Amino acid sequence: MKLTILGCYAATPRTISNPTAQVLEIKNKVFLIDCAEGTQVQLRKSKVKFSKISHIFISHLHGDHFYGLVGLISTFMLLNRENDLHVFGPKGIKEIILLQLKYSGSYTGYQLFFHELEATESQILFEDDTVLVKTIPLSHRIYTNGYLFQEKNTLRKVDINKVEHYNIDKVYYNKIKNGGNITLENGTIIPNSELSFPPQPNKTYAFCSDTIYNEAIIPIIQNVDVLYHESTFLESEAHLATKTMHCTAIQAATIAAKANVKNLILGHFSTRYGDIELFKQQAQTVFENTQIADDGKEFNF
Amino acid sequence: MKLTILGCYAATPRTISNPTAQVLEIKNKVFLIDCAEGTQVQLRKSKVKFSKISHIFISHLHGDHFYGLVGLISTFMLLNRENDLHVFGPKGIKEIILLQLKYSGSYTGYQLFFHELEATESQILFEDDTVLVKTIPLSHRIYTNGYLFQEKNTLRKVDINKVEHYNIDKVYYNKIKNGGNITLENGTIIPNSELSFPPQPNKTYAFCSDTIYNEAIIPIIQNVDVLYHESTFLESEAHLATKTMHCTAIQAATIAAKANVKNLILGHFSTRYGDIELFKQQAQTVFENTQIADDGKEFNF
Repeated sequence: MKLTILGCYAATPRTISNPTAQVLEIKNKVFLIDCAEGTQVQLRKSKVKFSKISHIFISHLHGDHFYGLVGLISTFMLLNRENDLHVFGPKGIKEIILLQLKYSGSYTGYQLFFHELEATESQILFEDDTVLVKTIPLSHRIYTNGYLFQEKNTLRKVDINKVEHYNIDKVYYNKIKNGGNITLENGTIIPNSELSFPPQPNKTYAFCSDTIYNEAIIPIIQNVDVLYHESTFLESEAHLATKTMHCTAIQAATIAAKANVKNLILGHFSTRYGDIELFKQQAQTVFENTQIADDGKEFNF
Repeated sequence: MKLTILGCYAATPRTISNPTAQVLEIKNKVFLIDCAEGTQVQLRKSKVKFSKISHIFISHLHGDHFYGLVGLISTFMLLNRENDLHVFGPKGIKEIILLQLKYSGSYTGYQLFFHELEATESQILFEDDTVLVKTIPLSHRIYTNGYLFQEKNTLRKVDINKVEHYNIDKVYYNKIKNGGNITLENGTIIPNSELSFPPQPNKTYAFCSDTIYNEAIIPIIQNVDVLYHESTFLESEAHLATKTMHCTAIQAATIAAKANVKNLILGHFSTRYGDIELFKQQAQTVFENTQIADDGKEFNF
């Protein structure tokens, strides 16, 4: 999995920072999570191939999380996109986008599918042989979802030394990956466990923004490899976090600790702060394995 | 008048260029003309004071001319704007903006007025003691207006040498500027014409984008000081200009020449071209006094 932060600041686009958008590359799929104004330019800076983006997941309908969506959809038209695009987001997102396309006299040449969300329980949005995506219901001023992305590694890993030792042809590798035994020319059956390693553990990524401190999400994000959790404020502005239904760095770290995640990435920083290192410092008093997001930063895990 | 080009390229925002937006400072007013995605950041780069923007004029509802509007309106809210904001644009613009504010659960603390346009004849949109703004009906794939901005200089200019010669006190300068005669202490009446110069000529600026080659606009923009005219294509792509209802540099220059304008600024360049100097070269074969726009460029006139 590769996570590229396109923007991780709250509220307004600035010359030095961008509101929320990020790209998750997982099992050869490219997912866009949130799409604030300026996302197109940030995508270009990070050299993400536009046509590879197949699914867009919008957390909520505050401008700093989706005002770049209509422009990106329009740009896909101009680039003569052909492959389908799936947009997941709160009810209303389809009306907003289609109204603007209608007035601009534009129609997408590609298939554009909207999947509008209203549920308040976690639901599966996408599943194929390799990836599963489900919602993480969050609690904010308007209807909001985080998203959990889960790899499905079902294939075993071929033990190259062993298959060479038995002189097994490459055409049988897929059979071995899928757990099959191999019968040699002399009739000997070699059990799969001798020829392969178990599947890699399934990596998981949870995106949680925007939200108040909400322990109800813990069962859904339990043990994830990476949790991106909003931390709009430092402890000195904890009263504003409560008032605006956001979190402090320490609250984000508390969720990370209680959910036993492996890594925490902090983001959605209020633009009032000059030094975002302070978010990390405060969070680490509660949860050591904390990193901070920044525009253009990449995380490989 | 000061014109600041925030963006002057067609179609999509890029790392190196921005779609259409510009600021006209005229008689202590700050007007924003078009508002593509990224306009907020461009305004900050050009150090335009957000609260000074009182009127926004949107030419048409293609994304590269207005996708930044909803974000700017939202940012005005976050900045606790108090003064009124007037938005002029094609019918539909109000529905698009208000729908997004509704779903975001946001309401502006300032008065937001929409003035929706449907007329196909030139109409006056704004007039006070110092400025007049009217539409320039354009011909594009969807309903589009250019805008004509006209200074109203009604005050005469005091002739400093003469008023000092007659020892006239400064408290009478306003009377002189307004055309009044002055009676000296000895009873002599000095006619205004002896004490002042005629008002400065009224500067005029015409913004015309997007449009096909359209001679119908000539009577409206006749003799303007500065004409900004779209020139999306070079002559080699003249067929695309016709097809997409845009202009070539030479067509823009032809309009400038026929309308007897003083200065032509070219803009709305297709992003396919690496060297925008070519637009100037081609236009100057028809109209010598041609300049090219570029993002961040300022024109004082």
